[in-house]
Amino acid sequence: MPKAFRPIGIFDSGIGGLTVARAISKRFPQHPLIYFGDTAHLPYGEKSPELIQHYAARITRELVDLGCGAIVIACNSASSNALKEVRSIAGASIPVIDVIQPVVEAVAQRFEGQSIGVIGTRATIDSGWYQRLLQERGCRVKAKATPLLASAIEEGFHAGKVSSTLIEAYLTKGAFDGIKALVLGCTHYPLISQEILSLLPEGVEVIDSADSVARALSDLSDDFAMGESDSQNPGLRRFIVSDLTRSFQLGAERFFGSPVILEERKLSGQA
Amino acid sequence: MPKAFRPIGIFDSGIGGLTVARAISKRFPQHPLIYFGDTAHLPYGEKSPELIQHYAARITRELVDLGCGAIVIACNSASSNALKEVRSIAGASIPVIDVIQPVVEAVAQRFEGQSIGVIGTRATIDSGWYQRLLQERGCRVKAKATPLLASAIEEGFHAGKVSSTLIEAYLTKGAFDGIKALVLGCTHYPLISQEILSLLPEGVEVIDSADSVARALSDLSDDFAMGESDSQNPGLRRFIVSDLTRSFQLGAERFFGSPVILEERKLSGQA
Repeated sequence: MPKAFRPIGIFDSGIGGLTVARAISKRFPQHPLIYFGDTAHLPYGEKSPELIQHYAARITRELVDLGCGAIVIACNSASSNALKEVRSIAGASIPVIDVIQPVVEAVAQRFEGQSIGVIGTRATIDSGWYQRLLQERGCRVKAKATPLLASAIEEGFHAGKVSSTLIEAYLTKGAFDGIKALVLGCTHYPLISQEILSLLPEGVEVIDSADSVARALSDLSDDFAMGESDSQNPGLRRFIVSDLTRSFQLGAERFFGSPVILEERKLSGQA
Repeated sequence: MPKAFRPIGIFDSGIGGLTVARAISKRFPQHPLIYFGDTAHLPYGEKSPELIQHYAARITRELVDLGCGAIVIACNSASSNALKEVRSIAGASIPVIDVIQPVVEAVAQRFEGQSIGVIGTRATIDSGWYQRLLQERGCRVKAKATPLLASAIEEGFHAGKVSSTLIEAYLTKGAFDGIKALVLGCTHYPLISQEILSLLPEGVEVIDSADSVARALSDLSDDFAMGESDSQNPGLRRFIVSDLTRSFQLGAERFFGSPVILEERKLSGQA
């Protein structure tokens, strides 16, 4: 199959990564996509690196078996803890895009030498991966785990008193004094980017990774670029979860921004 | 081994069930306990009944293999969705106490014919198990899923602005008008029972299940009662989790109310 028509495989621990799938499907409307949300094991954000690596490896195997031509790790906890494992299973012929390096690249270009804030799950922040990459690119970094935000958003608490109280609890007390930009290091957070912005000092930018990730796919090869233009014939999109509940079905649409039908597929050896 | 000295096996999806373990260890200070928190798969509250049954069955097998003489399901999501599976694996010789029937019994005796509120995870409330049991005992029931509460408490948000905003968001708008008592249908909630009480109309009682469950163990047999009295020789207590992180270690103490050392043990076939 020509590479351009092999599906882009996108995975996350749950449905938050649909914000990334949305940006990708907007940029590559003709390109087939397979989204895999590991809802049987979500959230990854509180799990140990070893367990995240184990889950991410298994999903990668599944996406490879499904014929994917590229893999996007649409989950910061997995990107920061399991990139090596995913790459090793994908092999040399299947490119892997994580959700962290493209945004670090974009941020570093604009904010070199300046102070950048990062928020994310505990697994993401504790890995130190954002901190290391941004520091290597000459940024100063203030990172903070904001573990309840993802579940709050998943529960539909955004643009309201609960989310604003929570954001305030996490962002205040000087944790991010002096930053020029705040990176949303979790694929759930774009849904509350406006609320976050309104609680930060004027002039601080809020940066999410979805567009940078979609752009990184474009840069991969001309094959992918082929899928970019014409939206007359939208590519086939499959949305798979490892455990299907009504609430995931309801939530999926909020994250993807248009109707989504989830199908359930147990991972081989899932337990 | 005499039954009285076989450990009581207690399990939950995470560390919330330590509130039940605490009540049990207070009542049976001499009795050995094995607590199993399935942190690799938490939270159960958002998972499908089938997956909860699968996890609960596997932990039960583990506790039976570890020689437990009784099993306590210290998790409402598992009690309401997997009691049959746990009983079937425990067999006739190992009694199983769930966290719902004892509290329903206690509530029904005091509030027959009256209106009772229940809050819990989505898996617990969607199962309809509390509603059915309380209605069979002549109570009227108002049940509501409050899915974010458990993770908020696990993150240390209690007795503060975040938890009170969240409780208010869940409990107001007349959801529980006219109730005489509110059952805390999740083993995390005892940590915020005072906050919940302060937001309910005067006279409404807040009821948690920990003491009823400990009492139910007493009623099981004289063997168990043997362990009740003398606290001179505290029984051996083991606290096992299927995925160990620093935050679980820190949280465990809050739920158990005294120092806890967690050990990690992968479940056989865990994936």
